[in-house]
Amino acid sequence: MRHLTIGQLADITGAELRGDADSLIQGIAALDRAESGQLAFLHTQQFQRYLAQTQASVVILTPEALVDYAGNALVTDNPLLAYAKAVTALAEEETIATEVHPTAVIDPSAQVATSVMIGANVVIGPRADIAEDVSIGPNTVIGADSVLGSGTRLHANVSLGASTQIGARCIIHSGAVLGSDGFGFASDQGRWVKIPQLGTVRLGDEVEVGANTAIDRGSLGDTVLGNGVKLDNHVHIAHNVQIGEHTAIAGCVGIAGSAKIGRYCTIGGASNIVGHIELADHVHVSGVTTVIRNMLKPGHYTSVVPAMPHAAWRKNFAWVKQLDRIAGRLRAVEKTLKK
Amino acid sequence: MRHLTIGQLADITGAELRGDADSLIQGIAALDRAESGQLAFLHTQQFQRYLAQTQASVVILTPEALVDYAGNALVTDNPLLAYAKAVTALAEEETIATEVHPTAVIDPSAQVATSVMIGANVVIGPRADIAEDVSIGPNTVIGADSVLGSGTRLHANVSLGASTQIGARCIIHSGAVLGSDGFGFASDQGRWVKIPQLGTVRLGDEVEVGANTAIDRGSLGDTVLGNGVKLDNHVHIAHNVQIGEHTAIAGCVGIAGSAKIGRYCTIGGASNIVGHIELADHVHVSGVTTVIRNMLKPGHYTSVVPAMPHAAWRKNFAWVKQLDRIAGRLRAVEKTLKK
Amino acid sequence: MRHLTIGQLADITGAELRGDADSLIQGIAALDRAESGQLAFLHTQQFQRYLAQTQASVVILTPEALVDYAGNALVTDNPLLAYAKAVTALAEEETIATEVHPTAVIDPSAQVATSVMIGANVVIGPRADIAEDVSIGPNTVIGADSVLGSGTRLHANVSLGASTQIGARCIIHSGAVLGSDGFGFASDQGRWVKIPQLGTVRLGDEVEVGANTAIDRGSLGDTVLGNGVKLDNHVHIAHNVQIGEHTAIAGCVGIAGSAKIGRYCTIGGASNIVGHIELADHVHVSGVTTVIRNMLKPGHYTSVVPAMPHAAWRKNFAWVKQLDRIAGRLRAVEKTLKK
Repeated sequence: MRHLTIGQLADITGAELRGDADSLIQGIAALDRAESGQLAFLHTQQFQRYLAQTQASVVILTPEALVDYAGNALVTDNPLLAYAKAVTALAEEETIATEVHPTAVIDPSAQVATSVMIGANVVIGPRADIAEDVSIGPNTVIGADSVLGSGTRLHANVSLGASTQIGARCIIHSGAVLGSDGFGFASDQGRWVKIPQLGTVRLGDEVEVGANTAIDRGSLGDTVLGNGVKLDNHVHIAHNVQIGEHTAIAGCVGIAGSAKIGRYCTIGGASNIVGHIELADHVHVSGVTTVIRNMLKPGHYTSVVPAMPHAAWRKNFAWVKQLDRIAGRLRAVEKTLKK
Repeated sequence: MRHLTIGQLADITGAELRGDADSLIQGIAALDRAESGQLAFLHTQQFQRYLAQTQASVVILTPEALVDYAGNALVTDNPLLAYAKAVTALAEEETIATEVHPTAVIDPSAQVATSVMIGANVVIGPRADIAEDVSIGPNTVIGADSVLGSGTRLHANVSLGASTQIGARCIIHSGAVLGSDGFGFASDQGRWVKIPQLGTVRLGDEVEVGANTAIDRGSLGDTVLGNGVKLDNHVHIAHNVQIGEHTAIAGCVGIAGSAKIGRYCTIGGASNIVGHIELADHVHVSGVTTVIRNMLKPGHYTSVVPAMPHAAWRKNFAWVKQLDRIAGRLRAVEKTLKK
Repeated sequence: MRHLTIGQLADITGAELRGDADSLIQGIAALDRAESGQLAFLHTQQFQRYLAQTQASVVILTPEALVDYAGNALVTDNPLLAYAKAVTALAEEETIATEVHPTAVIDPSAQVATSVMIGANVVIGPRADIAEDVSIGPNTVIGADSVLGSGTRLHANVSLGASTQIGARCIIHSGAVLGSDGFGFASDQGRWVKIPQLGTVRLGDEVEVGANTAIDRGSLGDTVLGNGVKLDNHVHIAHNVQIGEHTAIAGCVGIAGSAKIGRYCTIGGASNIVGHIELADHVHVSGVTTVIRNMLKPGHYTSVVPAMPHAAWRKNFAWVKQLDRIAGRLRAVEKTLKK
């Protein structure tokens, strides 16, 4: 953890400083646990009650929250963003050692920049191209002809299939698989004949891919994630999917083949998008929601079925299978009344 | 990519040739992007409009689609199947080098055929049996007493638990885990006591297992997947599950313990099958559907709840918890009217 | 498989012995397949019909089931628990060889007890602390500053991020990832700015983590799983989640950030819990159920939508989007009738 003054943090975050610019900050903690010398932030009203007693040496907060508070403050309309910037500055890792571990197996035809960190037992295939400042965690496998842009970090046990292209400053978490075959088969009288998957996976810059997420290669064209796309853990991206820039997809989401997701979308956890449909820019899908048709207008879409006590579920869900009959009976009643 | 004449492709695909048998094909592309020398195919009416202008040197299509088209054609009732065969022939990989990487750790008691490809850092346990033409990707682990049939391919970072049995010509993608313990516990006044999982996992021939899919070993008997079963990514197969031949299961599906799935079934993505139930042959489950009872008749089953605008969801889903009361009120109305 | 007498098994299981205490048991099988010399158990009435003909040398069963049966028996009110204990005793593995494979890469600053099993290509980072009787499968990666309690077992291809803390006698299955970054971003006018994730993952004793499950590190505090928590495969535990002791979570469950799950809960497969909510002790969530609000009372909650024939689904689910209108029409009818 680096040590920075509140004044430096004001510069880094762009927040307005109130109080002592020279106090030194050397840690980060939640508002109710922070000690002297630490930075805290107030993001939601829920924690407002901790503000008066906090021991934090500086708090990031909105102008509105400032009313209740007399201590050092970094004031901004977007405390979460200022917090992200402050933490990034404070938590900045020591410059990563430039090292290629002697147990790494690097094909002689691979191009590897000199300023890289390559962990133990990493395997890099023929003609792979690893740019400067790349960091590759232990036991990760880079397929032949793959390209990693500068500053990209792969954690341990990542698998990249052949010809995967990753931009600059991406982060790929452990267990992620990029470039696996898409699920493509032709039926030969009920037996499945594999369709070779000829495309690849292409990621823009600053893409993050969560733990155990898998992104299939395209069948003929490519599977493409734009700049700034963020995928959480256990996400399934099928072949030929296109995801627009700055779209964020939470954990356990499944996106079926050839779906096209716009830019600046958010997809809540455990939602599913069927194949061959299109979502416009700025579409927001709630968690546990299923999208089966195009959504060509920006907006917020939902189909979650919330839990209820089991006994209530038994009573109510018996009728779901009878909705058409209920509607029919209602129509009959309306007719009778009209007469 | 190999070079084949249209005549050779007619032989390979079984399609009827129309046009120039001697033209050379040396690539594959989508109908609207294909260039001279490439093969394309027309699978759905949706792309019919590209047919007139395509630059492809040959197109695989149905007799019906042929009407609009004057170029070289491979005519068949199943263009997708012909395409799969053509692509397999054209894309055929160079014969894989027969190599055991010097960093592979192979137990001396393992039996390994001579014509195999074993990648860097592969670990093969005691008494494992690896047949001819097997290919094992880097950093994959093969547990003790496992058996891999001829021509089977494991990609990088696969984990096989002890005694896993895999047939011939199977494909296992990166991150897949076969032979993990089933989720079996007995309750000792609320505390969970592990039930050792004594069975194993057995796969027939030509089974494909997607990236990050996991198949648990049986608790007492085995978990068994028949010939030709295809699993997509992120599929969960619990202990003792039986899956019949040529059944295909899309991404993110969960199949709970001891479920028995028939032959020639299809299970759509993100669907779930509860434990201890049975699905007949030729059962087709839509995506995002939950099966909680036996399905002993072939057919198509669904329970997906499609997304709607969030405001509509708020209004409509408030009533889901009230369906029983609605039904009661309707009954009361009907009674009143009868009087 | 060890050989034990029925008398010894009575002592081990705490069940009441009926019959020949000296008969030797040397195997375990299902009731309908057991042969002489094997132990079987009768857990549910469903298998009662196999009892009369079983060839098992001893059967674990309840006092009620005993009526139909004249053979050797171990009688208990909790046959599954007795079975778990008997199988554990019979299947007890040979003492694991104490070995550190020469290909393991262990940082000189790591502390490793002498009585450990460390597989091929394992990578152990700086300052990690590995207690006695730990077993680590091949190609597993242990991040810097991680702690593994005594008797804990990690299977092959596990990834532990830096500072992960695991208690004693835990089991972590292949492909599991602990300590990946939580999904935390601040929006900068639609672009996502990463919030460094400063917390870690802490597991109590006797925790089991299934294959390809991922547990994110906390954002500021830690992600914490209490003693005896059991997670199945493909479970997603987001940052800052707290799970109380002896809670069991089945496959494919997603638990979003900062959710707090009580003790002795069960969460059925493929269910989802949204973030920032709380579940009391002894809450039981059915499979394929979505929890979007606090559940502060013990009980059983459900929202699964069961599959129906596709044609019935088309008819009935068209009305789900019309429920509010149906309710309105019903109200109108009721009003008319009142007049």
